[in-house]
Amino acid sequence: MDPEFIDSLVVKNTTKIIFLIMDGLGGLPMGQGDQTELEAAKTPNMDALAGKSVCGLLDPIGYGITPGSGPAHFALFGYDPVKNNIGRGILEAAGIDFPMTERDLLIRINFATIDKKGVIIDRRAGRIDNETNERICRKLQDKIRKISDVEVIFEPVREHRALLALRRRGLREEIQETDPQKTGIPASLPKALIPEAEETSGILQKLVDKAREVLSDEEKANMLLLRGYSTYRRYPYLSERFGLNALAIATYPMYRGIARLLGMVIGPQPDSLKGEIVALRENYGKYDFFFVHVKATDSRGEDGNFDAKVKVIEEVDSLVPMVTDLKPDVLVITGDHSTPAALASHSWHPLPVLLYSATARPDRVKRFGERDCISGGLGRMPTVHLMGLALAHAGRLEKFGA
Amino acid sequence: MDPEFIDSLVVKNTTKIIFLIMDGLGGLPMGQGDQTELEAAKTPNMDALAGKSVCGLLDPIGYGITPGSGPAHFALFGYDPVKNNIGRGILEAAGIDFPMTERDLLIRINFATIDKKGVIIDRRAGRIDNETNERICRKLQDKIRKISDVEVIFEPVREHRALLALRRRGLREEIQETDPQKTGIPASLPKALIPEAEETSGILQKLVDKAREVLSDEEKANMLLLRGYSTYRRYPYLSERFGLNALAIATYPMYRGIARLLGMVIGPQPDSLKGEIVALRENYGKYDFFFVHVKATDSRGEDGNFDAKVKVIEEVDSLVPMVTDLKPDVLVITGDHSTPAALASHSWHPLPVLLYSATARPDRVKRFGERDCISGGLGRMPTVHLMGLALAHAGRLEKFGA
Repeated sequence: MDPEFIDSLVVKNTTKIIFLIMDGLGGLPMGQGDQTELEAAKTPNMDALAGKSVCGLLDPIGYGITPGSGPAHFALFGYDPVKNNIGRGILEAAGIDFPMTERDLLIRINFATIDKKGVIIDRRAGRIDNETNERICRKLQDKIRKISDVEVIFEPVREHRALLALRRRGLREEIQETDPQKTGIPASLPKALIPEAEETSGILQKLVDKAREVLSDEEKANMLLLRGYSTYRRYPYLSERFGLNALAIATYPMYRGIARLLGMVIGPQPDSLKGEIVALRENYGKYDFFFVHVKATDSRGEDGNFDAKVKVIEEVDSLVPMVTDLKPDVLVITGDHSTPAALASHSWHPLPVLLYSATARPDRVKRFGERDCISGGLGRMPTVHLMGLALAHAGRLEKFGA
Repeated sequence: MDPEFIDSLVVKNTTKIIFLIMDGLGGLPMGQGDQTELEAAKTPNMDALAGKSVCGLLDPIGYGITPGSGPAHFALFGYDPVKNNIGRGILEAAGIDFPMTERDLLIRINFATIDKKGVIIDRRAGRIDNETNERICRKLQDKIRKISDVEVIFEPVREHRALLALRRRGLREEIQETDPQKTGIPASLPKALIPEAEETSGILQKLVDKAREVLSDEEKANMLLLRGYSTYRRYPYLSERFGLNALAIATYPMYRGIARLLGMVIGPQPDSLKGEIVALRENYGKYDFFFVHVKATDSRGEDGNFDAKVKVIEEVDSLVPMVTDLKPDVLVITGDHSTPAALASHSWHPLPVLLYSATARPDRVKRFGERDCISGGLGRMPTVHLMGLALAHAGRLEKFGA
């Protein structure tokens, strides 16, 4: 079924839907135990909820596909993650609230260190701090405002990462990335990958040369590497597709960026998990869809720290009563993809999901975990259809056909 | 998800993947027992492996679809079995290592017996032996080398089956098969199914008339029936799609043929199951993907011999330690489709699969059998996505999207 099929069935009502997303939730056993992080965690609240919910396993993109955060979240919100795949550039731009226009080519910059011969020594410029990053972006902006008729904008993101926006109609994104993904060799050239991108390629080459000149007196960040070229694209908003007035509560820029791309209102940026749930409660009256994003599960998974990921899950579990207390019509608890500590990276494994609602038909799952969710009533399903299911349980999809 | 989506994510490494394929593995209870062939078989090795693997059920093509060997194997190797469906002719040609060209129309011949009025008495010409087949093909080839400007090639296959290749650009495959699939009536005519095939139809009609004349003094094989017209098509190889250097170990021509079509190296042709596993071991260092095909499960299923199929499965099980001993990064044990002895034919039932790998997330399946695999972590999945999953578990697919 085309994920956009549901759009024509949407009706509005006053129900409320909460998506509580633990980034990288899915896991694997690690070391001696045979339990995943979620299975090892003590989660009495989520287990009790699972007993009243319909559970299952989600495939973010498809069998064997390890998703980046962008496509994984697009799928969660009901957007075909392959058809709507977006470059890192537009995600970075969205994450820092950069006012994009339809004339923009958005590019992620990594500041790097090169030696006198131009060979890359450090692809992250020693992970310069945010202040240095801001100083360097200002320096570049002072010296480079235009390349021929193209407006050039530098914006710091964090550490060694920045955003480069080229503004003029007709720019193309089919350009080779200049980050060679390893040290010991020079940066690649921003070559055109198709003939139509030759002009953009020429502009970028001039820009890279100029920037290298401007940065030549820097000790660490004396070069920039270009990645994730993406021309701006306006996605249909959640309000337009589903009639949802949506609020995003996320502490990490990229997830706020994704939410903003899909037309969500960006809520406060609390500095704790509890702060996020408090923000949810404080804003509960004003919206009807809530995306609450927990980053730490993914971060601890990426760290390869099984026990720390378990602890984050347990902390989330302790906050679940503050969520259920709101009596949402639909509460979904899941993740965007798996990040098993055992792999210290995103993975392709399906991840557990729980959908709680008065209309959820109970299955026999009594515990929220990968192995239990295998036999849940949702079976194994593509993430992209979760939004439609949530809308249905919220009474927001009308009958199809007579 | 388009099965070809994974191609863009492929990376190379030195991992090894083994597909141990028991043809027609899936079964049904027969007679008094309520167990399938695989369930009835004593398979301690595969059961132990299942306990450490992720299991599930595969649908070769789709719900209710009984596949032929061609599409079922295409699906196993990650090729859309409907989009890439190939005629019997090209399969037969591949199976005898016929040097196909892009100008070829490949057709399967069944030698048959007709009476004086042209009515078919035996659609298999009394299953003539291979020697007779060869003699008859030589005889036809001596008399028929060209029909107008089309080169004609006869090649024996086995028993009553042969290959006919017509060689010239512009031939069409949209022709009615002449085997009426029953006796007591004359052969059908090779009519054009679309106007563009009229010329090819005319050539085939002349060829059939000529062949009947040439064979008129034969007692048994005095007619040929044409089936499975297929123009040659070059499929992308496993090396091209997945970067795999693949070896096929199969005792039956058709499976070697399929493997060759997909660019696999064709290994030795041992005359026993153990010989196949020995061949696997002897060639293990030289390749990174291994297709080991066991034909006898299917043959005994086709025979309707439940107990004999059980025995074949038990023999395979006894050889499994020789496979696991190689410590492959990914070992998949499954079949191409079901061939329940109870039906004595291929069937549409899903079939059990086991994927063993260090990154396989354990489920609760402790026994390799249809009923147990229902609750496996893979759920019920289309066969065509199995290859992507195997590649992922072998670390051969990179992340999708930022």
